[in-house]
Amino acid sequence: MKFELTILGSGSSVPTSDRNSTAQVLNVLERYFLIDCAEATQHQLRRFHVPYNKIGHIFISHLHGDHYFGLLGFLSTLSMQGRKGEMHIYADVRLQEIMACQSRVLGSRFNFPLVFHPLSRQEETIYEDKVVTVTSFPLKHHYETPVCGFLFREKKRERTIRKEEAAAWKVPIAFMQYLKQGADFITPDGEIVSNRRLTLDPPPSRSYAYMTDTLYRERFATYVSGVDLLYHEATYSKVDERLAKEGYHSTAEQAACLAQEAGAGKLLLGHFSARYTDLSGLLAEAQAIFPNTFLCHDGEVFGIPPVKRNF
Amino acid sequence: MKFELTILGSGSSVPTSDRNSTAQVLNVLERYFLIDCAEATQHQLRRFHVPYNKIGHIFISHLHGDHYFGLLGFLSTLSMQGRKGEMHIYADVRLQEIMACQSRVLGSRFNFPLVFHPLSRQEETIYEDKVVTVTSFPLKHHYETPVCGFLFREKKRERTIRKEEAAAWKVPIAFMQYLKQGADFITPDGEIVSNRRLTLDPPPSRSYAYMTDTLYRERFATYVSGVDLLYHEATYSKVDERLAKEGYHSTAEQAACLAQEAGAGKLLLGHFSARYTDLSGLLAEAQAIFPNTFLCHDGEVFGIPPVKRNF
Repeated sequence: MKFELTILGSGSSVPTSDRNSTAQVLNVLERYFLIDCAEATQHQLRRFHVPYNKIGHIFISHLHGDHYFGLLGFLSTLSMQGRKGEMHIYADVRLQEIMACQSRVLGSRFNFPLVFHPLSRQEETIYEDKVVTVTSFPLKHHYETPVCGFLFREKKRERTIRKEEAAAWKVPIAFMQYLKQGADFITPDGEIVSNRRLTLDPPPSRSYAYMTDTLYRERFATYVSGVDLLYHEATYSKVDERLAKEGYHSTAEQAACLAQEAGAGKLLLGHFSARYTDLSGLLAEAQAIFPNTFLCHDGEVFGIPPVKRNF
Repeated sequence: MKFELTILGSGSSVPTSDRNSTAQVLNVLERYFLIDCAEATQHQLRRFHVPYNKIGHIFISHLHGDHYFGLLGFLSTLSMQGRKGEMHIYADVRLQEIMACQSRVLGSRFNFPLVFHPLSRQEETIYEDKVVTVTSFPLKHHYETPVCGFLFREKKRERTIRKEEAAAWKVPIAFMQYLKQGADFITPDGEIVSNRRLTLDPPPSRSYAYMTDTLYRERFATYVSGVDLLYHEATYSKVDERLAKEGYHSTAEQAACLAQEAGAGKLLLGHFSARYTDLSGLLAEAQAIFPNTFLCHDGEVFGIPPVKRNF
């Protein structure tokens, strides 16, 4: 029942010896979602022992190189290693044009189908299966570079049957699926046994949101309201707020404000400028506003347990 | 007086934890030439402390991803770090088309001039300055992928003046440049002093050749005849010769044959398939034919001293 985020790169545009540029993998019940794909992401996937051939969906927040220059290399490696299954890519439609151009000029192609899903400038569900939905929503970066955030949310699960109670009331097997969905049970004698006696609440749905390369805007908190785990870029410290504004980025303090406004459970900071070797100042300024804040490091894993605790 | 090669990647198409895909830097008297540029080459340049902002010329052997997917990232980093000087790129003309497409679609550009030099299918000098020439020559890979090798050769240097002898014969300062070029000296009394008495032979010109992603062809040895240091791909062992042929690659044994036919001074093997963790077999089969053979490892430096010795 994993819901687990692996940080593949915690740096920003220029990689350093400690921090690669941005990429992450989210494992939701063995569905592997790759979020952004900086240069050398395939190296990081290997380094941190992620089963990268299980990745079936790649979400690219925007078309700055430090978020997608690793894509062609990663796909090429998968192709050479014999992948056959579809790969779904969610990105600015222009990425498709860039890849088509490369393919046309070189006459090259991958050995598996690529399925493109262009991102829009509106909040929308872009992926859905039995257990999870993914929503994209627009953020604010350089005017010529549309950026999307992503929200991954488990679907509401079925109620858990209290086996002993169900046995005592002789609930037929065929009726169990209705119990899971919340139905009361009526005995052959016509007695109504309330669903609450026969089942437990399902574990709460877990959620993760990814927001990078954006100016701080209070209204963005509504996209991720009540999220359990929030990753928000903190390219700069508040002492460099002018640089953040000029570069269309956020400070650690602004990331914390957004986490607070969203009522998030836990905040992860990342996308750090290469200018900072010591990140303790960024952590402190965020924790002053939102105490449950953590710094991301390459290779670090952040999980949400199936039953929500103080994680 | 450096003539020094740094291996940035000794692997082939799929990088491993020990071997990145192909790139090298050749330093010829503080001219830095980048040869191929696989994904994560900028990471390797940083890791091995190469002063990468001094690189002014990039040579791309062919347009397979493991030889150029790191180019955009490297150029982007240079641009962000404020580079202003020209960058010269020597490559298949289609690389220019690919980069132009990317730039057009995204409206992006670098903050320094890019100068493209398309490679031809003939042996030709593609770069020349006061101290070095670079020649490209065609090799044989997949039919739709033209591949070039490169030969870097120091120009013949001027003769070294024997200062005591020149002083004894009272050679005027203004005549020294002619001495360096081999002229005899005629004294005011009309006596001819032979240049051999006044000067020493210059140190021999050093040379390096790069041959990768090619089938073995005996005739290719003529391109690199007498080269001091030869890098030749050895993707496979001779026990996998069939795979080498199918993939248009060479075996370690074939690399050694070519070194022998060329009369090379020293052979470096690289571009190893990810299937080999132990490379001692490849080394042994090459050394059986050409004893002065070495394996390349990422980060390794191979120099040629100014005066040729048994290096």
